Amino acid sequence: MSDRMDQFRDTLGELSNRELKSVLSDTAIADLIYFWDELSEAEAIRIFSQLDLEKKVNLINELPGPDQESLITALSVEHAKVLLEEMEPDDLTDFMQAVSQEVRDSVWKSLSEEAKQETLFLLKFDEDDAAGLMTTRYLAVPATRTVAQALNWVRKSVQKVETVYYLYVVDQLKRLKGVISLREILSAMDDDRIEDIMVKQVTTVREDTDQEEVARILETYDLIAVPVVDRYNRLLGIVTFDDVIDVIRAEQTEDIYRMGGMAGGTERYMDSSIWTLVKKRIPWLTLLLVAATLTTNVLSYFESLFISATVLTLFIPTITGTGGNSGTQSSTLIIRGLATGELHFHDFGTVLLKELFVGLLIGIGLGILVVARSVVLPPFVGVWEAVSVGIALCFVVLFATLVGATAPLIINRLGFDPTVVAAPLMATLIDITGLTIYFVTARLLLGLS
Amino acid sequence: MSDRMDQFRDTLGELSNRELKSVLSDTAIADLIYFWDELSEAEAIRIFSQLDLEKKVNLINELPGPDQESLITALSVEHAKVLLEEMEPDDLTDFMQAVSQEVRDSVWKSLSEEAKQETLFLLKFDEDDAAGLMTTRYLAVPATRTVAQALNWVRKSVQKVETVYYLYVVDQLKRLKGVISLREILSAMDDDRIEDIMVKQVTTVREDTDQEEVARILETYDLIAVPVVDRYNRLLGIVTFDDVIDVIRAEQTEDIYRMGGMAGGTERYMDSSIWTLVKKRIPWLTLLLVAATLTTNVLSYFESLFISATVLTLFIPTITGTGGNSGTQSSTLIIRGLATGELHFHDFGTVLLKELFVGLLIGIGLGILVVARSVVLPPFVGVWEAVSVGIALCFVVLFATLVGATAPLIINRLGFDPTVVAAPLMATLIDITGLTIYFVTARLLLGLS
Repeated sequence: MSDRMDQFRDTLGELSNRELKSVLSDTAIADLIYFWDELSEAEAIRIFSQLDLEKKVNLINELPGPDQESLITALSVEHAKVLLEEMEPDDLTDFMQAVSQEVRDSVWKSLSEEAKQETLFLLKFDEDDAAGLMTTRYLAVPATRTVAQALNWVRKSVQKVETVYYLYVVDQLKRLKGVISLREILSAMDDDRIEDIMVKQVTTVREDTDQEEVARILETYDLIAVPVVDRYNRLLGIVTFDDVIDVIRAEQTEDIYRMGGMAGGTERYMDSSIWTLVKKRIPWLTLLLVAATLTTNVLSYFESLFISATVLTLFIPTITGTGGNSGTQSSTLIIRGLATGELHFHDFGTVLLKELFVGLLIGIGLGILVVARSVVLPPFVGVWEAVSVGIALCFVVLFATLVGATAPLIINRLGFDPTVVAAPLMATLIDITGLTIYFVTARLLLGLS
Repeated sequence: MSDRMDQFRDTLGELSNRELKSVLSDTAIADLIYFWDELSEAEAIRIFSQLDLEKKVNLINELPGPDQESLITALSVEHAKVLLEEMEPDDLTDFMQAVSQEVRDSVWKSLSEEAKQETLFLLKFDEDDAAGLMTTRYLAVPATRTVAQALNWVRKSVQKVETVYYLYVVDQLKRLKGVISLREILSAMDDDRIEDIMVKQVTTVREDTDQEEVARILETYDLIAVPVVDRYNRLLGIVTFDDVIDVIRAEQTEDIYRMGGMAGGTERYMDSSIWTLVKKRIPWLTLLLVAATLTTNVLSYFESLFISATVLTLFIPTITGTGGNSGTQSSTLIIRGLATGELHFHDFGTVLLKELFVGLLIGIGLGILVVARSVVLPPFVGVWEAVSVGIALCFVVLFATLVGATAPLIINRLGFDPTVVAAPLMATLIDITGLTIYFVTARLLLGLS
């Protein structure tokens, strides 16, 4: 894909409008998005103008607000009107929320009465809820129709709806009575009645269901669309899979940022100002730094100890680093298990027991390694000192493994998100306790005071 | 969902078979999977026996190998035969690969000739390739048919194919000539010819395309299914979205494990033995420990320095910890940008410049914080010593930010996966260089030797 697209981009200036149009008719929108950022505004507008209407709409839907604006404002009023009429109500609403006040006003004027009504209806709902993702262009049929009638209705409406793969069965008050997939309709007999073959137990979401929950439901039940109902079970609209994919992506980015210790939004890196980047990162670093300085208190408490045995100082970063790594590993496993629904709080005992053995085995392994290394490679330390460090490391690893495994379970049980809370809490706890374990063990073994 | 399911599980023993059957007819397979692990084998077999055939098949497809085996072997030969006939060829092939030799042999005997042929065909391909995911039950039509004929064909075949949403147009040698979506067929006129309305530029994958690449293509182009062709463009089968979801999940888990520093497979935590868990974690910890012990060499080099100013020792974990955190933040941002395709190596200059300012601003902020903290809270240190630590911390943060941002770009450019390589390399580099920066700065500022 990328080779063909790179070549296309390089030769863009040499193509006539006709050649460009022909290349574009064979090009997927996803391929255009691939290098859209690298185009000049003039190039972007030129390509846009040579796309057919359907692709224009799809491209607009995929682009961020500022790009949408520059393309729409480059169109004549007439062309813009045709394009806006083609957009799905939910995409149109997103568009209206993304562009500037000025563009919004001029766009509003050119909308049809129907589109205005749909947009106003959708604007009532919170952007982050199910209703904020839904489209009002779904297929609905009365329960008393036959399969042949329904199929005819599908064929007539196919241009006007976002998905034809489900038909929703509603009564006269628009209350949702059932659902039937297009597949089921196709496999039924022409004179079967919809009410006899529809599924009555419909998976629905409420208008205020959080969008991440909507995504989870679509994923869990392998649905292409899910209906949104109000508290009287009246059908308001449907959320389709493609709208949810974006939610899943954004959520994934957010999770990854959280694991990396960052707050706030998921704007693109290149679009973020230096100040935005600083604001995103500094809260977490500040919190972690304040926590980390507690280690100065621990070290200060044991100061007499490392004055009499400076060799102990040499291993401070090794101890805290290895403790942190062991803790991160077990917390990663447990947090992932919680996220996929495999682990629950009632597994606490099993997890604790497993990690006890795992931590002990790994601790012994790493302890032996650090002793061997200290005896064989510089900086050389006394055998007994090396053994003390090794034994201390073993305890630190064991402790870190147990904390890493149990903390997420407890934090999750208390109703917090372990991805966010576990990292700083654990890092601090492991550093402070790890250093204490280290010095206490060494003091005992080396007979210092 | 979970409340209803918890209640169902608790009252399971009291339900008659008829009541159980009625509850199950309204229950989605995803809901059963939710607590499947917690059932005894007898309970599992009882529930399974009361499901209708379609749900039996769906449940079997969702379960891991050992569970599949115990359910299948509990069935009579006759029942097993009916069930196996209902399974899609790709699911059947997966099943055959997951169960024990014994079960495989007995299952093989009860398969129909057609199912045996399909399974043998699919077994020829690598499990991790496109062909390993594909089903051979797709809809194909000749290009010369009319829309009405095609629609009739769809209605006749709907029970036999995995998806009805695309029709593939092939010639007599099974070479792929085009594709048309069911939606397009429904919106066309009855006597339109398929060849006039089909899309000729078909997105395809080859039989040996890696499964993660297949997932990426389905996602990028928002497809429900993608055709698999051989090098003569002959249609071998199709990969549908639901098969790819599992690939995406497994890949996500793998990435998260890698970020947490773990090697190897993505088995479930509760199914992994202690020894498996140790083997998964110890390679990484060993590598990181060996790298971390290089800090002992750095510290040993500066030993005279912290003997004359023990206060410097107190801040060792603060320095390495904060350096590590800053580096992790910027590498997380850059790695995510690379993964989503937003960043490329040619952005190196921009990234470097941005991170220079970001690192400097954050460094100054954190430096001031650590000075303030050291003067206000115990352990109290001299003002000039605190200022030295603060300035050193600022440099360490700046350095770590730059390394964290540029290392993934370089590693990616060299053709390695930055998620795997960046973490240990960075941690070591930042610890070692950070400590060196710290001691050199402090020595200069405090006038020590």
